[in-house]
Amino acid sequence: MNQKVLDWFREHPDQYISGEELSCRLQITRTAVWKHIHVLCAKGYGFDAVPKLGYRLVTQPTRLDEAALLSKLVPGTFGNRFRILEKTDSTQNEAAAWAQEGVPEGAVVLAEEQTSGRGRQGHVWHSPAGKGVWMSIVLRPRISLPYTPHLTLLAAVALSRAMKKLTSAPLGIKWPNDIFVDGKKVAGILLESAAEGERLLYVIAGIGVSVNLDNGDFPEELQKKATSLKIVTGRDVDRASLVAACLQELEQMYRLYEEQGFAPIRTLWEAQSMTLGRQVTIDTPQGPLEGVAKGLDESGALLLKDKTGEVHKVFAGDMHFSG
Amino acid sequence: MNQKVLDWFREHPDQYISGEELSCRLQITRTAVWKHIHVLCAKGYGFDAVPKLGYRLVTQPTRLDEAALLSKLVPGTFGNRFRILEKTDSTQNEAAAWAQEGVPEGAVVLAEEQTSGRGRQGHVWHSPAGKGVWMSIVLRPRISLPYTPHLTLLAAVALSRAMKKLTSAPLGIKWPNDIFVDGKKVAGILLESAAEGERLLYVIAGIGVSVNLDNGDFPEELQKKATSLKIVTGRDVDRASLVAACLQELEQMYRLYEEQGFAPIRTLWEAQSMTLGRQVTIDTPQGPLEGVAKGLDESGALLLKDKTGEVHKVFAGDMHFSG
Repeated sequence: MNQKVLDWFREHPDQYISGEELSCRLQITRTAVWKHIHVLCAKGYGFDAVPKLGYRLVTQPTRLDEAALLSKLVPGTFGNRFRILEKTDSTQNEAAAWAQEGVPEGAVVLAEEQTSGRGRQGHVWHSPAGKGVWMSIVLRPRISLPYTPHLTLLAAVALSRAMKKLTSAPLGIKWPNDIFVDGKKVAGILLESAAEGERLLYVIAGIGVSVNLDNGDFPEELQKKATSLKIVTGRDVDRASLVAACLQELEQMYRLYEEQGFAPIRTLWEAQSMTLGRQVTIDTPQGPLEGVAKGLDESGALLLKDKTGEVHKVFAGDMHFSG
Repeated sequence: MNQKVLDWFREHPDQYISGEELSCRLQITRTAVWKHIHVLCAKGYGFDAVPKLGYRLVTQPTRLDEAALLSKLVPGTFGNRFRILEKTDSTQNEAAAWAQEGVPEGAVVLAEEQTSGRGRQGHVWHSPAGKGVWMSIVLRPRISLPYTPHLTLLAAVALSRAMKKLTSAPLGIKWPNDIFVDGKKVAGILLESAAEGERLLYVIAGIGVSVNLDNGDFPEELQKKATSLKIVTGRDVDRASLVAACLQELEQMYRLYEEQGFAPIRTLWEAQSMTLGRQVTIDTPQGPLEGVAKGLDESGALLLKDKTGEVHKVFAGDMHFSG
């Protein structure tokens, strides 16, 4: 039904129409007209509403389309195949199913909207239509299972580099792989892996970037904790360019890791970290740990020095700044 | 149709019947009778064949049944729930699906026969009907992903201890978790894991023990590389007792690990290892490595000292003795 309303406006680009007339023409109630226009606004369509004249469609959301993406991509492994979906529960599920079917490394699933986007530690990831980059990439790394933390950190380095390419926002990495700006989260990464023994079958790298959300697009409980590139920079950011930059940086970091191991990735991560030297609390599977984040070790663990001077290696947990 | 032949023999426990008469009574050809008896033999049924008298059923395979298992189990987490299947592609698949549905830790899937049993490194696991323990256990360990090699080694310790409880076979652990005797493989372990970030969602511990196979039950290409407890000890081994012993040892090692970490598991593994001190070649994801196996490090990696004296950490690969 949204489609009928949208189609009318698209077919009459410069024309105003009143709610009453539209309800008549499409044989739907006036309440339904208002509801549909409201839903379209939430999806990124903009209307000019003038008393007595009615509504006119003035802006349409930029769609992610494959041709536009391909034109921006440097040829390589990442982005060799795309699936672009209008709506899905989670691009992670789509990509995992695709990986199980045997799709090669570098295949990418994008969605305009996720209805059950997942974040780290079982959190929900808010993924409204048309406003973000909600993307999953199939990886088939030739490393053993215990080295997956390297990938977690590598992905954070690649994502923050890609975001810096397109904006001047003062981004930093919050351990292990959230991207923060102005003390708020603007992007996150979730790696999901499947292994037989110590052999990785595949890793699905999920990347979520809040690109063109306005403050009101976030649920109230997130407005103090989350932000978007648009809020930070004051302008719309082209999503296709951001996708292309992410894939290119990911490719570059992945090759660097293959050739030189974790050492250069560690250096890049530490240089962009906003975690090191700070007093933090981490809720680990074994309970909370408090201390000062000192750096990464060669296995990718965060080194946390507690007040007794003992240094703990931490791979996983929810981190909060505590001082 | 097998069922009709089997039913007749079960209903006439002490009676001989000729192939001809059976073919008449069941309205099947004599060739079909022979084929069915042959299949039943392969499933563990034994017939006495006497010229002129015909066939008599003398032994039936011991079935794994839940009541028998429960009577042998010490109450605990492992074995709190059972699924016992006649035939399945792989108990790993069954258990993974069960885990995804949310079944608690310790749930066990057993099958009399696997049609696509999986071993480590993508190998096939030969799992004929009624002759082995083909088992998968759902684990939900509260450890981070990089520690899964600890579980691989822990499972090997538990399995070899359980097998030693029931037989006097001179078993040893071949890195990382195969059980060997007389230079041949008698049991193996495959851990399959799913993770979100560094958080393990579940681990499926697959255990395969060749219990009552005769040499002829193995495909020809395996006869020089594989053996069974029956071949080694010269007698049938009760599968239900072995399942119970495995679950009990697994529970004990798992609690030991939770309480004291990897150190005691490492000691137990090294004590039962037939790998340490030997010249080996390991096909790793990065290529072959040759050297002397020196021990395990705290992360569960095998320490391999090559001829230049450099020590490599190895988590995964196919290992061969090379000297």
